[in-house]
Amino acid sequence: MNFKAQLQDYASFTDMKLDFYLPPLDNDQKSIYEAMRYSLLCGGKRIRPVLAYSTAALLGISKEDVAPFACAIEMIHTYSLIHDDLPAMDNDDYRRGQLTCHKKFGEAQAILAGDALLTKAFEIAGIGAIELANKMPEQAVRGALILRALAASAGSEGMVGGQVIDLEGEEKVLSKETHETLCALKTGALLTIPVQISVLYAGMTNTPVGDLLIRYAQGLGLAFQIKDDILDVEGDAKLLGKATGMDEKCNKTTFVSLYGLEGAKARLKALTEESLEICDQLSDIFPERTEQCAFLRELAIFLLERNH
Amino acid sequence: MNFKAQLQDYASFTDMKLDFYLPPLDNDQKSIYEAMRYSLLCGGKRIRPVLAYSTAALLGISKEDVAPFACAIEMIHTYSLIHDDLPAMDNDDYRRGQLTCHKKFGEAQAILAGDALLTKAFEIAGIGAIELANKMPEQAVRGALILRALAASAGSEGMVGGQVIDLEGEEKVLSKETHETLCALKTGALLTIPVQISVLYAGMTNTPVGDLLIRYAQGLGLAFQIKDDILDVEGDAKLLGKATGMDEKCNKTTFVSLYGLEGAKARLKALTEESLEICDQLSDIFPERTEQCAFLRELAIFLLERNH
Repeated sequence: MNFKAQLQDYASFTDMKLDFYLPPLDNDQKSIYEAMRYSLLCGGKRIRPVLAYSTAALLGISKEDVAPFACAIEMIHTYSLIHDDLPAMDNDDYRRGQLTCHKKFGEAQAILAGDALLTKAFEIAGIGAIELANKMPEQAVRGALILRALAASAGSEGMVGGQVIDLEGEEKVLSKETHETLCALKTGALLTIPVQISVLYAGMTNTPVGDLLIRYAQGLGLAFQIKDDILDVEGDAKLLGKATGMDEKCNKTTFVSLYGLEGAKARLKALTEESLEICDQLSDIFPERTEQCAFLRELAIFLLERNH
Repeated sequence: MNFKAQLQDYASFTDMKLDFYLPPLDNDQKSIYEAMRYSLLCGGKRIRPVLAYSTAALLGISKEDVAPFACAIEMIHTYSLIHDDLPAMDNDDYRRGQLTCHKKFGEAQAILAGDALLTKAFEIAGIGAIELANKMPEQAVRGALILRALAASAGSEGMVGGQVIDLEGEEKVLSKETHETLCALKTGALLTIPVQISVLYAGMTNTPVGDLLIRYAQGLGLAFQIKDDILDVEGDAKLLGKATGMDEKCNKTTFVSLYGLEGAKARLKALTEESLEICDQLSDIFPERTEQCAFLRELAIFLLERNH
């Protein structure tokens, strides 16, 4: 399968699984499923699940096995967007070209839909851990290790921590160091955890391969944020599904404001080259996994070249 | 140890553990710890952890072993109060006699503190599952079962589901059936899960003892809500730390509005008697666990007679 087809296959598989894990139940509280599904099933790029499946494939693990964890990450990502869009936070009316959750369902339902998605994420991850324990009884602890890592990446020492720094830094110029921490937490943590989960699932934490994969993900996470900052300056609002030029308007500290547009582009290019170098090393380690290594290589280029 | 001393011991142990699991870290996002700790460490009754420790003790499991899960439940309970108090939800200014989280730290920080507590809960529960796996490697799946159950009790088919019914039912008269579902989810789920966790930890799910303990918790959960409704009518606002008479003012459907004050009291008494009968049966099954059975008995009476 070529890169684009594989990417599409992973995304469709994710959509199918998310729909399965979050059925529109017919009970007294059914209105919550509508709000949860509205935000979750709106056709995102599913980059986080893609990172989980593709690195799992390299380590010889099927996408079915990591699907509960990959879907949990996507649910956590979605809840964070719902809460981030709230009037008390970024106060956004549109997301991916459609009304934000609170604009569509009201603020109370949006808060609860976010809470419910975050909670559902851990329920699904719990199901993944049970499946892992049944499949590899002697390695059952790995499910618990994955759950702990997932929560850590999403919480006050992870993504939420990044949002707090972001909130406190509004209208302030952040130092380069604080800004880097913000990005590593707010965007980086949820882009690294899919790979961390594959590595934990395979029992390869603290091995040369595990470390290489984590470095690949961390580089990609940082590159992802830099690209976002660049797109806010020179991207197409229509393709992006949101207004551009917002960072400057809001006096936000970004890679562009700190290093200039050319500086940001240079950093993005260097990071992508680093990712490709890691892919070369992985190819040497897994000579029989040509297709999987090629996918990771093309994914890094795809994220570099994306226009939305 | 007599009942009151044991109750106090369990509560102090919980406070100590919560403080340990949520240290005030000195990092870029440290402001979030202040908000999280403000709401978490304000000296609640810790009824949910108490239910976990006391039922675990009956099943021969130490409070240390279930502490991560018990603390996770308390964190989930606290996050739910923070979000429930938000302007878009109940819009409360005071809780337990102190300013609510958003009144003290602002709305954005309160949303994030709630999110962070919910996430931290699963991180701590993950640590509990890792400890369980290390202690009983051949039973490691139990940690995953506990995590799934914990999330289910807190999410859209549990507590959050109850909040959704509550939200949609505002200013409406709920049927007795819907109201019972609301209570089973909104209050009952988080009061049942501590016992369910002890039963899962002990590997006693779907056994007569396990079923008895779950029934005990469900009865207590329902009684707890009925008592709350009664206290809103005839309780002391000063002792309660919040205004009374609010249910009637807000046209809320409660056990008192549906069954009258005397009807609610009769139901509460009947439920408590049922709990005591379950304790009698447990005493017959565990003749050597006199103290633990006595504690569960006195706990039911304590919750019946509480004035706040």
